[in-house]
Amino acid sequence: MGEFDFIRDYLQQNHRTDADLVLGIGDDAAIVRTDAAYNWCISSDMLLAGKHFFADAAPDDIAHKILAVNFSDMAAMGARPRWVLLSAALPDLNAQWLQPFTDTLFAFLRQHHTVLIGGDTTRGNLIFNVSIIGQLPHGQALRRDAAQVGDDIWLSGQVGSAAAALRHILGQYTLPPACFALCRHALLRPEPRLALGQALLPFAHAAQDVSDGLLQDLRHILCASNVGAVVNMDAIPIAESLRISLPEKDYFDAALCGGDDYELLFTAAPCDRERVWQAAQDSQTPVTHIGQITASGSLTGIKNGQKWDLPNGGFDHFR
Amino acid sequence: MGEFDFIRDYLQQNHRTDADLVLGIGDDAAIVRTDAAYNWCISSDMLLAGKHFFADAAPDDIAHKILAVNFSDMAAMGARPRWVLLSAALPDLNAQWLQPFTDTLFAFLRQHHTVLIGGDTTRGNLIFNVSIIGQLPHGQALRRDAAQVGDDIWLSGQVGSAAAALRHILGQYTLPPACFALCRHALLRPEPRLALGQALLPFAHAAQDVSDGLLQDLRHILCASNVGAVVNMDAIPIAESLRISLPEKDYFDAALCGGDDYELLFTAAPCDRERVWQAAQDSQTPVTHIGQITASGSLTGIKNGQKWDLPNGGFDHFR
Repeated sequence: MGEFDFIRDYLQQNHRTDADLVLGIGDDAAIVRTDAAYNWCISSDMLLAGKHFFADAAPDDIAHKILAVNFSDMAAMGARPRWVLLSAALPDLNAQWLQPFTDTLFAFLRQHHTVLIGGDTTRGNLIFNVSIIGQLPHGQALRRDAAQVGDDIWLSGQVGSAAAALRHILGQYTLPPACFALCRHALLRPEPRLALGQALLPFAHAAQDVSDGLLQDLRHILCASNVGAVVNMDAIPIAESLRISLPEKDYFDAALCGGDDYELLFTAAPCDRERVWQAAQDSQTPVTHIGQITASGSLTGIKNGQKWDLPNGGFDHFR
Repeated sequence: MGEFDFIRDYLQQNHRTDADLVLGIGDDAAIVRTDAAYNWCISSDMLLAGKHFFADAAPDDIAHKILAVNFSDMAAMGARPRWVLLSAALPDLNAQWLQPFTDTLFAFLRQHHTVLIGGDTTRGNLIFNVSIIGQLPHGQALRRDAAQVGDDIWLSGQVGSAAAALRHILGQYTLPPACFALCRHALLRPEPRLALGQALLPFAHAAQDVSDGLLQDLRHILCASNVGAVVNMDAIPIAESLRISLPEKDYFDAALCGGDDYELLFTAAPCDRERVWQAAQDSQTPVTHIGQITASGSLTGIKNGQKWDLPNGGFDHFR
């Protein structure tokens, strides 16, 4: 199989019609129609074997993850994803690997009403780059710099499970089999919180997805918004099985500093609590109120009513 | 230096204001305004050390090339580039490398009135992915599938020099120093033919940039347009120094199958020859009439008035 056979047979299939797609895969670039009612929201993520996923991971798990982490960026903006470009460096073109990879890829794209419109293929050691384009109504966005003093801080789902699975795999500790199975699923198959992000868009203030660790990502919001926060450690949503299986130090470390959660961390005015609950219900996504935005400029933890020292860590590719 | 210092100190500088940029680098995604008068044109290219450039190449040459090949895709559509996203996997964050890299990167972006709006950074072995977004007036585009029987086939600049430099470096043959210097410049510093592409947009038919070898890229146009072609070998624009330095077989092979030229290969109706010359003059880009589109479905070479067997090669990352 050559590069152009791969593009034609696996990537160029017209999996979904899209009235706004003028020209799809196969030319020097794709062409899409714009709509004056919307702004466009764009992000791009690179994922490397051995860093963002294991090189021997199942091809369908890889396909899911490289899309999920990018769709999560759209969720964190409150945007509706529309189009995807995929660059892939593959060691060879092996149908046994490509079939489940592209099956899962296109199933994911269809599920989210999005279309693959371009990208690049080359030979290399399992490297992917996904660029995603979404739409946002004019004047609306869940930005990092929009947290306001007095806001509630909220978190979707649970945090720490993906990091705990990774640490189990790396031999840092051993989780019981049932707990590991749950955590492994969180690591391999994160679900971008798109419906929640779009439901929050009209009224929530700041948001971002938790990819580098809850505290580090919260610090990004605080820094961009020039505010502080108090976080209630007792409220941090951590899977029951993780709390049972690990010492408190370890499950808090995974939950606060682990990353790879792809949950939405967001702030909203206390008067909008009912709207948050409604958005959670409409999007069938659990949310937890975990703290308050303060004017202090610092980040403080509270546990059992006492001040609690927060760890400093978080994920940085170069530290 | 950590990942976030790098983003803040090297990438997040507000190098250029752009009235259509709502939110730039530093959030989960960038936000740009759309304009109902334009379609958007989008492409994405991955470039790996040791494959698309030498790992020990100068950082400024790498910065130039990773942008030039992407801007060339916009040129080949006739689009005006607007925004760029850069994903970079770097072995470390070394200011001595980063400074010339980002200096050239931003100089190139400014020169083309474009803005870096996002991307990703991670640790890895010099891997880049550039996504580029341009604008096209509604209903206009230089597509591969638009060649028409009877069209003239045109080529900008000269082809073969970059491939000859690569073959010299790989030890396949030795070029004289002055010839190598010219060819090396073509390899390291290709200039995307943006002004020509935009000047051709109102009237030219098909176009694409020559990245995988002139004949292979011409075959893409023929296949997409369901037409054939006759190419006049005597007209292929090849640098004089290359013709003097290499046997005919070698310089034709570099020119026809080499790739990495980033010249525009395009077709236009014979009645539009004057407009092509005018577009070439306006854009200060040499162009050469190299053949005709035919109804035959085949690709034929003519040399000294005789039919000439064309080589089959061209670049395929997986062959």
